[in-house]
Amino acid sequence: MRKVKVGIVGGTGYTGVELLRLLAAHPNAQLHAITSRTEVGVEVASVFQNLRGVVDLVFSDPTSGILFECDVVFFATPHGVAMAQAPELLKAGVRVIDLGADFRLQSVQQFENWYGLAHKSEVVLREAVYGLSELNREAIRKARLVANPGCYPTTMQLGFYPLLKNGLVDVKTLIADCKSGVSGAGRKAEIGVLFSEASDSFKAYGVSGHRHLPETLEQLARMTDASVELVFTPHLVPMVRGMHATLYAKLNSESQGMSNEAIQRVFDEAYKIEPFVDVMPWGSLPETRSTRGSNMLRISLHRQGNTIIVLVVQDNLVKGAAGQAVQNMNVMFDLAETSGLACVALMP
Amino acid sequence: MRKVKVGIVGGTGYTGVELLRLLAAHPNAQLHAITSRTEVGVEVASVFQNLRGVVDLVFSDPTSGILFECDVVFFATPHGVAMAQAPELLKAGVRVIDLGADFRLQSVQQFENWYGLAHKSEVVLREAVYGLSELNREAIRKARLVANPGCYPTTMQLGFYPLLKNGLVDVKTLIADCKSGVSGAGRKAEIGVLFSEASDSFKAYGVSGHRHLPETLEQLARMTDASVELVFTPHLVPMVRGMHATLYAKLNSESQGMSNEAIQRVFDEAYKIEPFVDVMPWGSLPETRSTRGSNMLRISLHRQGNTIIVLVVQDNLVKGAAGQAVQNMNVMFDLAETSGLACVALMP
Amino acid sequence: MRKVKVGIVGGTGYTGVELLRLLAAHPNAQLHAITSRTEVGVEVASVFQNLRGVVDLVFSDPTSGILFECDVVFFATPHGVAMAQAPELLKAGVRVIDLGADFRLQSVQQFENWYGLAHKSEVVLREAVYGLSELNREAIRKARLVANPGCYPTTMQLGFYPLLKNGLVDVKTLIADCKSGVSGAGRKAEIGVLFSEASDSFKAYGVSGHRHLPETLEQLARMTDASVELVFTPHLVPMVRGMHATLYAKLNSESQGMSNEAIQRVFDEAYKIEPFVDVMPWGSLPETRSTRGSNMLRISLHRQGNTIIVLVVQDNLVKGAAGQAVQNMNVMFDLAETSGLACVALMP
Amino acid sequence: MRKVKVGIVGGTGYTGVELLRLLAAHPNAQLHAITSRTEVGVEVASVFQNLRGVVDLVFSDPTSGILFECDVVFFATPHGVAMAQAPELLKAGVRVIDLGADFRLQSVQQFENWYGLAHKSEVVLREAVYGLSELNREAIRKARLVANPGCYPTTMQLGFYPLLKNGLVDVKTLIADCKSGVSGAGRKAEIGVLFSEASDSFKAYGVSGHRHLPETLEQLARMTDASVELVFTPHLVPMVRGMHATLYAKLNSESQGMSNEAIQRVFDEAYKIEPFVDVMPWGSLPETRSTRGSNMLRISLHRQGNTIIVLVVQDNLVKGAAGQAVQNMNVMFDLAETSGLACVALMP
Repeated sequence: MRKVKVGIVGGTGYTGVELLRLLAAHPNAQLHAITSRTEVGVEVASVFQNLRGVVDLVFSDPTSGILFECDVVFFATPHGVAMAQAPELLKAGVRVIDLGADFRLQSVQQFENWYGLAHKSEVVLREAVYGLSELNREAIRKARLVANPGCYPTTMQLGFYPLLKNGLVDVKTLIADCKSGVSGAGRKAEIGVLFSEASDSFKAYGVSGHRHLPETLEQLARMTDASVELVFTPHLVPMVRGMHATLYAKLNSESQGMSNEAIQRVFDEAYKIEPFVDVMPWGSLPETRSTRGSNMLRISLHRQGNTIIVLVVQDNLVKGAAGQAVQNMNVMFDLAETSGLACVALMP
Repeated sequence: MRKVKVGIVGGTGYTGVELLRLLAAHPNAQLHAITSRTEVGVEVASVFQNLRGVVDLVFSDPTSGILFECDVVFFATPHGVAMAQAPELLKAGVRVIDLGADFRLQSVQQFENWYGLAHKSEVVLREAVYGLSELNREAIRKARLVANPGCYPTTMQLGFYPLLKNGLVDVKTLIADCKSGVSGAGRKAEIGVLFSEASDSFKAYGVSGHRHLPETLEQLARMTDASVELVFTPHLVPMVRGMHATLYAKLNSESQGMSNEAIQRVFDEAYKIEPFVDVMPWGSLPETRSTRGSNMLRISLHRQGNTIIVLVVQDNLVKGAAGQAVQNMNVMFDLAETSGLACVALMP
Repeated sequence: MRKVKVGIVGGTGYTGVELLRLLAAHPNAQLHAITSRTEVGVEVASVFQNLRGVVDLVFSDPTSGILFECDVVFFATPHGVAMAQAPELLKAGVRVIDLGADFRLQSVQQFENWYGLAHKSEVVLREAVYGLSELNREAIRKARLVANPGCYPTTMQLGFYPLLKNGLVDVKTLIADCKSGVSGAGRKAEIGVLFSEASDSFKAYGVSGHRHLPETLEQLARMTDASVELVFTPHLVPMVRGMHATLYAKLNSESQGMSNEAIQRVFDEAYKIEPFVDVMPWGSLPETRSTRGSNMLRISLHRQGNTIIVLVVQDNLVKGAAGQAVQNMNVMFDLAETSGLACVALMP
Repeated sequence: MRKVKVGIVGGTGYTGVELLRLLAAHPNAQLHAITSRTEVGVEVASVFQNLRGVVDLVFSDPTSGILFECDVVFFATPHGVAMAQAPELLKAGVRVIDLGADFRLQSVQQFENWYGLAHKSEVVLREAVYGLSELNREAIRKARLVANPGCYPTTMQLGFYPLLKNGLVDVKTLIADCKSGVSGAGRKAEIGVLFSEASDSFKAYGVSGHRHLPETLEQLARMTDASVELVFTPHLVPMVRGMHATLYAKLNSESQGMSNEAIQRVFDEAYKIEPFVDVMPWGSLPETRSTRGSNMLRISLHRQGNTIIVLVVQDNLVKGAAGQAVQNMNVMFDLAETSGLACVALMP
């Protein structure tokens, strides 16, 4: 079978190198180009020591035209880049998977409010498909442009979905207390994420408003007719990879009589065919490290009084970013959805 | 001034060594005895390298009678020990500060349910004073026996107190999403808190019921006439020291019109004389490391819609345990409350 | 092709779970049995959350006979176990790879001195083959019993080998300053490797004598006629996986005139066909994380005056243990040496 | 007693904040001014949360003249700053302690070679006193300008000193394999010391030449008539604070007959009056955390064959920088040498 020819824009960040790790070992993909404005001509493996002997690409100039030779181009770039370059690629028949935020929000106004940037590609935005395979698989299959979900939104959506879809909870009571490893902040030289600042400490951030909130609200709204309210508090954990969402929702009056077993069944049913969602037994305590390097997301359920507590863990760089992007590519190109994503989590 | 003569029971754990660190430098205290059943005759400084040249005590036999020579004895022991030994010490005129759980719960039945142990000292329990200085200072001053609060309950009580006391929130909506450094688990050889298990990972634990819940509920009930409900989820953070509570409460209908400034003033007012509670400006993001080694607890406020989010940080071994115990000793012996507790947090 | 039927003895430690991770994804191996005296009947995936959905084995009783159905049995056990059980397995035609120390030392007396244990299988010991594939490949191919090298010895041997083999250094000047992640201490409940003890700190250990010294000396002696002296100092690094050896050797008088390029060529030549030894450009600074989860070992060279400094990194659980064991299995069963070992290191 | 009036130049780095932590609690010092070009007018406590309620200074403009009101000014700045500003301060009668490198090397040529910068203050350099109190106390007492030693050089000098001074070792065989926590790299936004780069990994750096080498060689030369050779390899440890030096030296032929006890006595004797050097019993294993936040440096001795191994630990920000600077201030102003430096190390 012909391999899918892949290009990556912006390969010097953490989602970029993670795409390289996954795609280099993907049986149905061929790394064709990786671009970086600042590192043209530099060997990828000289920047990322783990890729020595694995990836022999050199960073290309993003303006060189090499991306047009690809079947699909991944954007692992800050917001603003994909919306500038995607239209031309699409016109040339290249499919696009954007790991940034440019096409996640259907509402242009919300985008401009939260990102402080005019949207340059409204036409393209209208055809963009939100890339959460578990909830949107059929649309992804046919999409030319997929907006890969944010890391936090992935955990919140998959955690709340069975509750909202089945109308079990009061949608005014949703709280998402989320915790992320430091790699979520990207590979940027900033004081706050220095080892000596972030190690051996814990703090909340973005409590007054985080860009993943409007994205999540927009998607949660698709699961229910009611008007959802969501309190969202992200925190920074002194670990490299990993994301843990602790989700709270009050059972509505009709559902307070449900047994724990019945609620568990709702989740089991919702994800029974999903290769990358592991619904654990009731009362389990998932650890982020059990997903380290893997595309698996694990969910477990607890209850205190009438509050359901959903615990969700994933590797923010894999299921929360690069792995989910590869999963989307697999769906788009009719490959086995698990192709190239068999990596078992490293533990310890 | 005569120094307070201090004994410590159970000095081989983390609260024990932290008491030693603080008391060795306390200008009004004299370390007189430290006992350990397993380490009799061993130099304390040979177990805790940081105390070389600072503490020259040797572990004594707890049955040797040396504790009766003290003015006050701290119990840094698992539950069950203090309730067995405290009555005799009290009878001999020695005051007691218990860092364990034996005297925290006023309800004997709650104690026996949660700790699976018959309570041996109900008479003494009735005179025990709950040692949260900020809320209970006068009773502590006169107490013969002080029950030092648990680490999580300290953050939850000080965080919720101004809201409950002033009737600002719906007491059925309280959620405490708490995160603790690994030292909270104590110095016990257990697989789950090995470096290779707990490092570079994050997880919830005790979600189905944690012993700090009944203690907190009992104390929160003292702040309001209404019947409080509390959802409590503890998590384990890969850091040595530090505790972060993220507290959620919905403003009740009468209070939803309050401005953020007004709510901030309620907190400022509640703690304006407190040397160890730092109410930060609205919207601040406290880091646990800003309390590392210090007895300071920091609070900041946020709001999303009608939900108030209170962030609380402390060093679980200091304000959450040994430091608070020394603060209680200072109150009990009419010393300056800050005596021996001036240590500035280490940062970075 | 028929898959190699694999059994694992002692699957609850870190080398055990790492073998499971690697072998579960090995295209030419089939996990047939995993035994544990303490966990009979327990699902492996309930102990190691990362293996949920990947390994569906249940721990078997080691005395059940199931191991005799295997083609090869890995011992991931403390010393003493393999030498008790290996003879019978060999007699039954099952090949054995011991990840413990029982068959590493050819000298029974050295074994008994360092391990304080009589050797029970001297006959079998005489046929045991030391499993460092790079230096011993042909013997391994035919071996019935392979003694997998210790983690430190792997780095020291591969780092010193080209220097000793080619007679470039004064063999009285060898110093190995080695650093290991905490997982090297195993999955045992011991105070010293608790998170709160080992995190955010660094120390040497075993300086007065470590069991990997006689093993290394025995093997270095095979590389040269001269009588080697080696100073060996292991240290504990607050990281989960990873090992870094900093090796020092003085160039002998005949070699002091050699250029850096010439010395580099000696190393390039020594390992030019090796799939798992990466000789980096002169002056490189290998990071342990560039081998995290991978079977690659990286080497780089430096020089200060007449002292050659060899830096060696590996993942102590992979190339230093389970990965090397699988590499040995591949050699023993005429599989591609890289089969099942393609995993790219996780970075970050 | 009048307090020493203190100024700090460059208070936004880690040595700056550490000076603030120590001096804020110093009974004989008064913080008078702290300057920063970039943060003029900003409250110090808003940058360093741990100083809230402890330090109420605001960053001053370095050109405002406020430094001339001080008794002593600490430079916690990159190299080049102190040599530009010190002469004027000295002329005005203000004493200077430079925590940077400008006055550490007596040889101007070495300075210019290693720092790539012309030295602007050669006259002042000639009167600069090297501030290692243990070896240079009398000169420091009278000094107007003290050059505070580098962190690595402090450990190497104090570790090798008794051996060199007493002529016990072959000075051609010195090797210093040193390991530092990440805070040693300073509070600069650089990719290499991001949490996600430096955590859970270990590597050497500066192997081809580190600026602390010429400083150490210059000082070691003062301890012996022989011409010292030193191999020096620094490494980066994933911890915030702490430094561990593993020092190797071969006993010379006259000393190979010495007993371990005799060698131990040489060290005991060398440091018997030192308040901040803890010579531990032979064979001890010092942990860096046993010095966390404290000005103590610990030394222990080991021997393998004729090689003496000296282990040295300190907190790189305290004894390796700010604490040693305060110690120097105490000596310069005839205060008790331990004044303000009683902090016991945090452990765990």
